[in-house]
Amino acid sequence: MNRGKIICVGLGPGDPELMSVKADRLLRNARQVAYFRKRGHPGKARQLVNGMLHAEVTEYPMEYPLTTEIPHDDPRYIAQLSDFYLDWQTRLTQLAQGEDVIVLCEGDPFLYGSFMHLYVRLRQAGAEVEVLAGIPGMVGCWHATGIPVTWGDDVLSVLPATLPDAPLREHIARSDALVIMKVGRHLGRIRALLAEQGKLAQAWLVINGTMADQQVMPLHAAPERCPYFSIVIVHGQGRRPANDM
Amino acid sequence: MNRGKIICVGLGPGDPELMSVKADRLLRNARQVAYFRKRGHPGKARQLVNGMLHAEVTEYPMEYPLTTEIPHDDPRYIAQLSDFYLDWQTRLTQLAQGEDVIVLCEGDPFLYGSFMHLYVRLRQAGAEVEVLAGIPGMVGCWHATGIPVTWGDDVLSVLPATLPDAPLREHIARSDALVIMKVGRHLGRIRALLAEQGKLAQAWLVINGTMADQQVMPLHAAPERCPYFSIVIVHGQGRRPANDM
Repeated sequence: MNRGKIICVGLGPGDPELMSVKADRLLRNARQVAYFRKRGHPGKARQLVNGMLHAEVTEYPMEYPLTTEIPHDDPRYIAQLSDFYLDWQTRLTQLAQGEDVIVLCEGDPFLYGSFMHLYVRLRQAGAEVEVLAGIPGMVGCWHATGIPVTWGDDVLSVLPATLPDAPLREHIARSDALVIMKVGRHLGRIRALLAEQGKLAQAWLVINGTMADQQVMPLHAAPERCPYFSIVIVHGQGRRPANDM
Repeated sequence: MNRGKIICVGLGPGDPELMSVKADRLLRNARQVAYFRKRGHPGKARQLVNGMLHAEVTEYPMEYPLTTEIPHDDPRYIAQLSDFYLDWQTRLTQLAQGEDVIVLCEGDPFLYGSFMHLYVRLRQAGAEVEVLAGIPGMVGCWHATGIPVTWGDDVLSVLPATLPDAPLREHIARSDALVIMKVGRHLGRIRALLAEQGKLAQAWLVINGTMADQQVMPLHAAPERCPYFSIVIVHGQGRRPANDM
């Protein structure tokens, strides 16, 4: 008899005060908590709930298979990852027969969330699974700049920095406001593309937005390297009454 | 002596359980609350906090000047609106000399938020003003569909339906995932543009996402009319392991 559910909880951008009332309650009452992590790492999502979990919680780290030696488009990598998801699909379903399993997810789970590969499999298999919205990481990052990201009729485009130059160039040229995700090792290329389109002077780099170690700086003044989860923001200027700046 | 601050609180998409822990606390303790509304209407933001405010709160509805008879690009309209903002800039600053003034804002205040015109004026005048991030309305709407909005390298574009056809057509063609805001009277035009780009079959219409009266439907099956704050969603399909659907 299935008594529990699998509930993926969006943890928001990092500041625990920005978690939803419902996320806060589910986390503090959880008896089973699962989260992705790389082997040898504590897990970013797990770190966001430090000090919040119940003393009697059981934790289930879902460790990604080691992948450094195989390229991500190699069929062996895809097969390994597929086995990994199937394994956790089975285990989470079994665990939820006892009581709810809370799956931790940074930001908003439906926006580039790592749990979504498991979510579609669990749904297809008929498991009872819920997803709780959170404040996306990018929202925390534009708040870190203290400047509104869109006004009036602005178009906002959210671009993974991992895309090739051509589509990045087109979207950078055509959109009023930009969020560029997963900047990491693409920093130099993103900077060059923004400069080419005359948008470098308005661009900001935000690292760990809303967290204790948040860093915000103009992109042109940023160092050569930044972490994978850094975000570049270009704010829209929008249509608004003539007197506003 | 200035003892208080002006704090604009993002209320999230509508479900009070999705407000942040900090928003919930600020609202329940607030002694002064301000919000925009149209004359003769209760105010959408105010309705979201029904039952949450303290018995001794003082409320300040900020009523937009009547504008039906003047087009929005008319200099008289712009002047009226400018006077309205200046008036409330002065009043909020005076009120905050006593204690904090909480300004209510649907969704996330930095994403097309109505308070931003006041925010920039208050900042320019040196007032102490804070803005608290919330879950944007669009996030609540994509959760209402139960489907992830972006995967892998998907590009997400957020488009106001109030834009002309040409830019809408370009972004619809080039982006993987779409959020189209402020659909209202543009519903027929948006439907035609999506059909033209072969994206109508994947499009959803969400009205009042996460609220008690939420409505979610395929866009092709939607009625001819919908409220101003309706949102159209086209989910990205993304780059992901071959076995995922």
